[in-house]
Amino acid sequence: MSSTRDIDALIDMMARLPGLGPRSARRAVLHLIRKRDLKLTPLADLMQTVAATARECARCGNVGAAEICDICLSPKRGNGQICVVEDVADLWAMERAGVFKGRYHVLGGTLSALDQVGPEQLRIPRLVARIEEEEIGEVILALAATVDGQTTAHYIADQVEDRVRLTSLAQGVPIGGELDYLDEGTITAALNARKAL
Amino acid sequence: MSSTRDIDALIDMMARLPGLGPRSARRAVLHLIRKRDLKLTPLADLMQTVAATARECARCGNVGAAEICDICLSPKRGNGQICVVEDVADLWAMERAGVFKGRYHVLGGTLSALDQVGPEQLRIPRLVARIEEEEIGEVILALAATVDGQTTAHYIADQVEDRVRLTSLAQGVPIGGELDYLDEGTITAALNARKAL
Ligand SMILES: [Zn+2]
Ligand SMILES: [Zn+2]
Repeated sequence: MSSTRDIDALIDMMARLPGLGPRSARRAVLHLIRKRDLKLTPLADLMQTVAATARECARCGNVGAAEICDICLSPKRGNGQICVVEDVADLWAMERAGVFKGRYHVLGGTLSALDQVGPEQLRIPRLVARIEEEEIGEVILALAATVDGQTTAHYIADQVEDRVRLTSLAQGVPIGGELDYLDEGTITAALNARKAL
Repeated sequence: MSSTRDIDALIDMMARLPGLGPRSARRAVLHLIRKRDLKLTPLADLMQTVAATARECARCGNVGAAEICDICLSPKRGNGQICVVEDVADLWAMERAGVFKGRYHVLGGTLSALDQVGPEQLRIPRLVARIEEEEIGEVILALAATVDGQTTAHYIADQVEDRVRLTSLAQGVPIGGELDYLDEGTITAALNARKAL
């Protein structure tokens, strides 16, 4: 149907977003068309704005609307700590927890021989430079407990351990997590790091 | 963070779409920002186009880009059959099956005393008028087997059964559907409508 070509194309693009599929894309597009003035037009406008303004922070790799992001610009966040994360989504998760008061360094992935991702692709040289420039006293590694995540953690440790205190997030049972749903590695780590009540 | 306000607002709008939530909205927006030129800008443009052109077919309630939709305009689809569906999503599902050759009538909901949805809100008078105007010989009710769906089916039957042949989709076990996952009503209906092999 030629006159619904744009609608079909829109469903198609939405369906290819992570977390969506054809069915949820169809539902979302129908919903948007029904609430055209209230939802579809504002959403399109906002996407245009973000497409025009969003950029990676030149210092930490966070996503924002300026050359240097708010966290890097805030003097309050300059407490001598850098938390190293794989991805902007991880940075956002840390910020939602609201407990970390320092700055971030977003690697943009993990080292992977298979995918030919080396230290340069991951901004690791940039991290080493920041330790000097920003007088960093502690680097907190908040990387996934996967093979690639841990390979990356060890590589970073080799690069920075003589310049800075190096820590990583504790492993253990998530709050509200039922043991039954956890993998053996997590349970083992939680048991080994057990604390006296 | 003021400079990420637009990004936060975009995540917020996406998260409120049916089928998405905060987590998938965050992932989708990060993905779009990373592929700004390839994905975010084209998606925003397409939404603008659809917002400017999409409209409900004045005859059947389908969604398209013209006053009257392609299906209503196609002489091939004027075979004297109208399939009554609750929603445009149901019309699309029927079209994907590709088996129905007639036209549609989209109610836009089901009768509901609770939500104060009456026959006028559902284009039922329009359906009655179309039976005369388009020389319809059969109305196929493709409504959900819910209380509201069946109330609506009975109401439509009362209005049109003396003018037209009235049928409804067969109920039974979906192809590939395991009995274990089906509700008792479906199993009962499938058993009652059993056929000799
Ligand atoms: Zn930054
Ligand atoms: Zn139509």
